Amino acid sequence: MATETTVDKVINLAKRRGFVFQAGEIYGGSRSAWDYGPLGTELKENIKAEWWQTFVRGRGDMVGLDSSIILPSAVWKASGHVDTFTDPLVECLQCHKRHREDHLIEAFEDKKGRAPEGGLAEVPCPDCGTKGRFTEPREFSGLVKTYLGVVEDESGLHYLRPETAQGIFTNFANVVTAARRKPPFGIGQIGKAFRNEITPGNFIFRTREFEQMEIEYFVPPASAAEHFEEWVAACKAWFTDLGVNPQNLREFDVPDGERAHYSDRTIDLEYRFGFQGSEWGELMGIANRTDYDLGQHIKHSGKELSYFDQGSGERYVPYVIEPSFGLTRSMMAFLVDAYAEDEAPNTKGGVDVRTVLKLHPKLAPVKAAVLPLSKKPELAEPAGKLAEALRRQWNIDYDDAGAIGRRYRRQDEIGTPFCITFDFDSLEDQAVTIRDRDQMTQERVSLDQVQGYLAQKLLG
Amino acid sequence: MATETTVDKVINLAKRRGFVFQAGEIYGGSRSAWDYGPLGTELKENIKAEWWQTFVRGRGDMVGLDSSIILPSAVWKASGHVDTFTDPLVECLQCHKRHREDHLIEAFEDKKGRAPEGGLAEVPCPDCGTKGRFTEPREFSGLVKTYLGVVEDESGLHYLRPETAQGIFTNFANVVTAARRKPPFGIGQIGKAFRNEITPGNFIFRTREFEQMEIEYFVPPASAAEHFEEWVAACKAWFTDLGVNPQNLREFDVPDGERAHYSDRTIDLEYRFGFQGSEWGELMGIANRTDYDLGQHIKHSGKELSYFDQGSGERYVPYVIEPSFGLTRSMMAFLVDAYAEDEAPNTKGGVDVRTVLKLHPKLAPVKAAVLPLSKKPELAEPAGKLAEALRRQWNIDYDDAGAIGRRYRRQDEIGTPFCITFDFDSLEDQAVTIRDRDQMTQERVSLDQVQGYLAQKLLG
Repeated sequence: MATETTVDKVINLAKRRGFVFQAGEIYGGSRSAWDYGPLGTELKENIKAEWWQTFVRGRGDMVGLDSSIILPSAVWKASGHVDTFTDPLVECLQCHKRHREDHLIEAFEDKKGRAPEGGLAEVPCPDCGTKGRFTEPREFSGLVKTYLGVVEDESGLHYLRPETAQGIFTNFANVVTAARRKPPFGIGQIGKAFRNEITPGNFIFRTREFEQMEIEYFVPPASAAEHFEEWVAACKAWFTDLGVNPQNLREFDVPDGERAHYSDRTIDLEYRFGFQGSEWGELMGIANRTDYDLGQHIKHSGKELSYFDQGSGERYVPYVIEPSFGLTRSMMAFLVDAYAEDEAPNTKGGVDVRTVLKLHPKLAPVKAAVLPLSKKPELAEPAGKLAEALRRQWNIDYDDAGAIGRRYRRQDEIGTPFCITFDFDSLEDQAVTIRDRDQMTQERVSLDQVQGYLAQKLLG
Repeated sequence: MATETTVDKVINLAKRRGFVFQAGEIYGGSRSAWDYGPLGTELKENIKAEWWQTFVRGRGDMVGLDSSIILPSAVWKASGHVDTFTDPLVECLQCHKRHREDHLIEAFEDKKGRAPEGGLAEVPCPDCGTKGRFTEPREFSGLVKTYLGVVEDESGLHYLRPETAQGIFTNFANVVTAARRKPPFGIGQIGKAFRNEITPGNFIFRTREFEQMEIEYFVPPASAAEHFEEWVAACKAWFTDLGVNPQNLREFDVPDGERAHYSDRTIDLEYRFGFQGSEWGELMGIANRTDYDLGQHIKHSGKELSYFDQGSGERYVPYVIEPSFGLTRSMMAFLVDAYAEDEAPNTKGGVDVRTVLKLHPKLAPVKAAVLPLSKKPELAEPAGKLAEALRRQWNIDYDDAGAIGRRYRRQDEIGTPFCITFDFDSLEDQAVTIRDRDQMTQERVSLDQVQGYLAQKLLG
């Protein structure tokens, strides 16, 4: 029996505790997308809030944008996506299922430790097992299309965006004018994107519906290389500042011929997810998109999207450095990185193994849990009031079920930094015991100090 | 010439200052959706944050969810949307454009002040003007569809959700188990939804891509009516607590035959937007969806979605009270309600008319603007540092261009509650002048007190 890996354990925990549910599960489920349960939604919101604060609100050279998901086909023709956002597909002549040629070859390599010698000739179909009976590869669009309006024709053809970036490029001139900006400056956006992936998989890692956090940073062409390096460092720092172990991050300088059609240079930041067969996975990428996108939109729309620098008297099309984060991939990396099994004292004087998510307090979905030692009204009432008061500021759990040790374990497992026990002494001394998730130390804190105590620990 | 109405002025301001841009504007634009610029994005985020805090994080009986936009067609067959989410369309026999029959009749009534006597016989086509030459009405689906996977057939047919609600219903049992909840409790969700509206219009009021903030509140059937009333009051209070004038809100009890297919009772909260021809518009609705949705999903999925109450020993399918908010409609209501023109003193000792958005400080996209009196480095440097320090907590503008009075006007117009002037005296007394948007009073505040001053005014 294969040992359960950390990533397997995280996936099981995420499903069991309601971080992530399968979309449409009661109808057999879909691999296209996942639903985020109460804890996953809070975690995701916290990641978004930290990102927005670090890269948009917190910086004088950045503004935010929220553009539409559905855009007319003209935008995607100009951006090059209609023509080049494709994958080579082959069809099995036996069972007529279609597969990505590159994925078939990768799977073979993972299994055999070498490339298939005769190309697909010795590769079996993953569906029916028939060996090497495939059609020639055909380009298949990764765009998700739909029709708007009352007639299903070319005029109503729209694509769901495969990246949030184009909504930023098409609004470049609007933002420069309305927000009175000049390069270097950037526009940040968080939102859904859609790609018709042939083989979605690895839990929330590769899905057809996903969420991005993207920055398009507009710079004078001569300083593009310098800003590129700055952004690589800033992106890495964001993850490590939020607790990710630097040893689990590495850079991959994407070689010529493997980059997206718009990129002059790309560095992928990879995280050691530990999937079977592919230990490292792409977490995000920083691309130098040059003046490609603005240039294409100038050509196709006929609009003036260059920038006139009044200081130097020069007009130029800015270069664009694009740090593009996968939100749900980031979430998965934070979860895998935070997962630990260590020892906690039990009530019998021994130790138990506990599962704990050592999430950064800013990311933890529940900031504190209020635990009355008994369900009796004399404790339940004041404990409930404490929870209610704390909820004005934070997401707070209230749990009165089971032994206190078990309740600690439940909170450890979802990464709650603080457990607040309301006991019978609390009625006398108007104080509670606050337990720290990581140190497992306990402090007696006066009721009127709890808010300040948490504020200091959670924001610090 | 028609006088410019408040709503027209708000729309112009929103476009000019970068609250809202037309989607795909450089390609001629689309009425299907709008893009939110730097200020609109911040305002929208603030509305979402307030809603989430009030209705989800702040309540012990609520949890959050974030389900996928694209769901398999099975979900929408069960929910009744495939069959009943349709509009009657007629086609002009002359120009072959299609129109909603009810909209043609409404337009006639608005213009003539009476119903058309012979039905559509005396109604002209809005496109070509030909009178009364229409086909019989045909039902047209309002669902936006797409295909996922490699083959465009029934197996890949998915719909973009027309409401976020179904993602909540399909996860009901998951949430009950994972989050250990029992009725009455609710699930809140914020997210995009899509409807193939035949006639999008009125700016961000009716679009094909839009954003909802929805609550599905699960209750024992016997208490549904009572919870319905509670939610009507809570929803109204949310708007008025955030500054909306109660006189601009009214309830509309939707009569039999006009409600959605799932609703036993609906109260629409209407806001006095002041559109031409329709002064009041639907802002949100509270519906009693009964056990309709869970019942349909039980029937179609074969899963157990009832709730077993261990206390009473009874098993029942909960009733659902649904407060459903339009996020962008809410944003528009906040903007229209905050819009004012009043008098401000000018430097010549007289008064000027100023435009001001009296947005609630919690909603204001920019919380404070730092205005150095001169661009000289001796002021610019410390003023820049102040802005940077404040950005750790809030969205802060920095504006050093033009006369101070003009800069005040620019900030008033976007609703910035506080303007902080850094002048030459600041170098001496280490203090700044803080101006209040509404009172236009000015206070001298020591530099080391600015953060505390704002924190108290903005959170209070």
